[in-house]
Amino acid sequence: MAYQLYYWPGLQGRGEFVRLALEEAQASYIDVGREGKAGMAALLKILEGRNLPTPPFAPPFLKEGETIIPHVANILMYLGPKLGLVPKPDKLRYVANGLQLTITDLVAEVHDTHHPIASSLYYEDQKDAARAKTADFLANRMPKYCSYFERVLAQNPKGPTYTRGARLSYVDLSLFQLIAGLTYAFPKATENFPKIYKNLTALHNRIAIRPNIAAYLASNRRTQFNQSGIFRHYPELDG
Amino acid sequence: MAYQLYYWPGLQGRGEFVRLALEEAQASYIDVGREGKAGMAALLKILEGRNLPTPPFAPPFLKEGETIIPHVANILMYLGPKLGLVPKPDKLRYVANGLQLTITDLVAEVHDTHHPIASSLYYEDQKDAARAKTADFLANRMPKYCSYFERVLAQNPKGPTYTRGARLSYVDLSLFQLIAGLTYAFPKATENFPKIYKNLTALHNRIAIRPNIAAYLASNRRTQFNQSGIFRHYPELDG
Repeated sequence: MAYQLYYWPGLQGRGEFVRLALEEAQASYIDVGREGKAGMAALLKILEGRNLPTPPFAPPFLKEGETIIPHVANILMYLGPKLGLVPKPDKLRYVANGLQLTITDLVAEVHDTHHPIASSLYYEDQKDAARAKTADFLANRMPKYCSYFERVLAQNPKGPTYTRGARLSYVDLSLFQLIAGLTYAFPKATENFPKIYKNLTALHNRIAIRPNIAAYLASNRRTQFNQSGIFRHYPELDG
Repeated sequence: MAYQLYYWPGLQGRGEFVRLALEEAQASYIDVGREGKAGMAALLKILEGRNLPTPPFAPPFLKEGETIIPHVANILMYLGPKLGLVPKPDKLRYVANGLQLTITDLVAEVHDTHHPIASSLYYEDQKDAARAKTADFLANRMPKYCSYFERVLAQNPKGPTYTRGARLSYVDLSLFQLIAGLTYAFPKATENFPKIYKNLTALHNRIAIRPNIAAYLASNRRTQFNQSGIFRHYPELDG
């Protein structure tokens, strides 16, 4: 049975971290929000459902049978063993989930660079705060997170090819997306990434050419980065 | 063997969500960060450890044997079955984790009401942005989250006593902390909570008088809310 992924259409957004795992594993899935009007209606029906036990707060969520699993890290923790994309010993699932939750935090901070005051306001209406927020993000937060992930790769007992162990995990795929997104949004501020984050850059480049990922990136299933997503390129914010 | 919880001393912070679960279950634990100089040294040694496979990004983290599990929701997902604080069927663990991750998002937004631009700056240096951020939080975000959790309780097939099923889970304990924190930080903006969030208020009040929780709240292990934590009372921000 195909997995049902529910997410807003028209942007990569948080859904993209789940798509990359499904695509790498060649899992059968329906991207419900992209199935036209019927897809959006199905998404909203769940979000607004008044008879549903434990409705989700927001997309993305995964539906398998009657179970609805919201939040990227939660979906990936659930899918990890099924897709063969998490290290085997049970305890390492929590290690992977810890890394994924640090990625979640970074993603939220990236979102807040262009929307520091309110998601409900336009970027143009919070531009001054966005400038200040982004300046701090690029000077302090981005280097703190990226140095951390660089170090995680360096300290993997099996070598810096993957975040943990000797096999690809969903965390590695999410780091690919993170580096792709940051370099799209902040081309100037990230231009020295290949020099200072060697392991991360190598990871990104290796994952981009994995056959299933390369095929996905070249397909029309991959929405391009755009100004509706989390990673947005506003030249005036790029340090 | 006692669980080792690592968190900064002097504030409730994110560690408090873990403490409440450990206290309710009467689990044996060491609050390492509060063990004086040696405790802080142990915490920093792990954070800065250069030989550790997959070091944590930040506290809180739980150490059990050689495994280090960071992030509140991850720690609680790990501890849930061990402490008897999560619904039994395996799939419901992901439902509970989804709720906990929504709490995580709300906690981050509460933090950002007083630090919308940069964690590294003083509140006083980002007061204007904090005012704007908090106005949006109190008008839009807090009601959105609280209505959601109210609805989750109302839609529990077993009745509104707990978030899911007929038994207490760690999510319920975290919701107690959330309501306690919001009413501390924003006494004015939350004064009508008992009228509009009847289920949430009842949940909060029931949990406060559970014997193990009441004993904990009255003990010196419970740090009081203060201006170092996530929930801070700045009268000028309270709507």
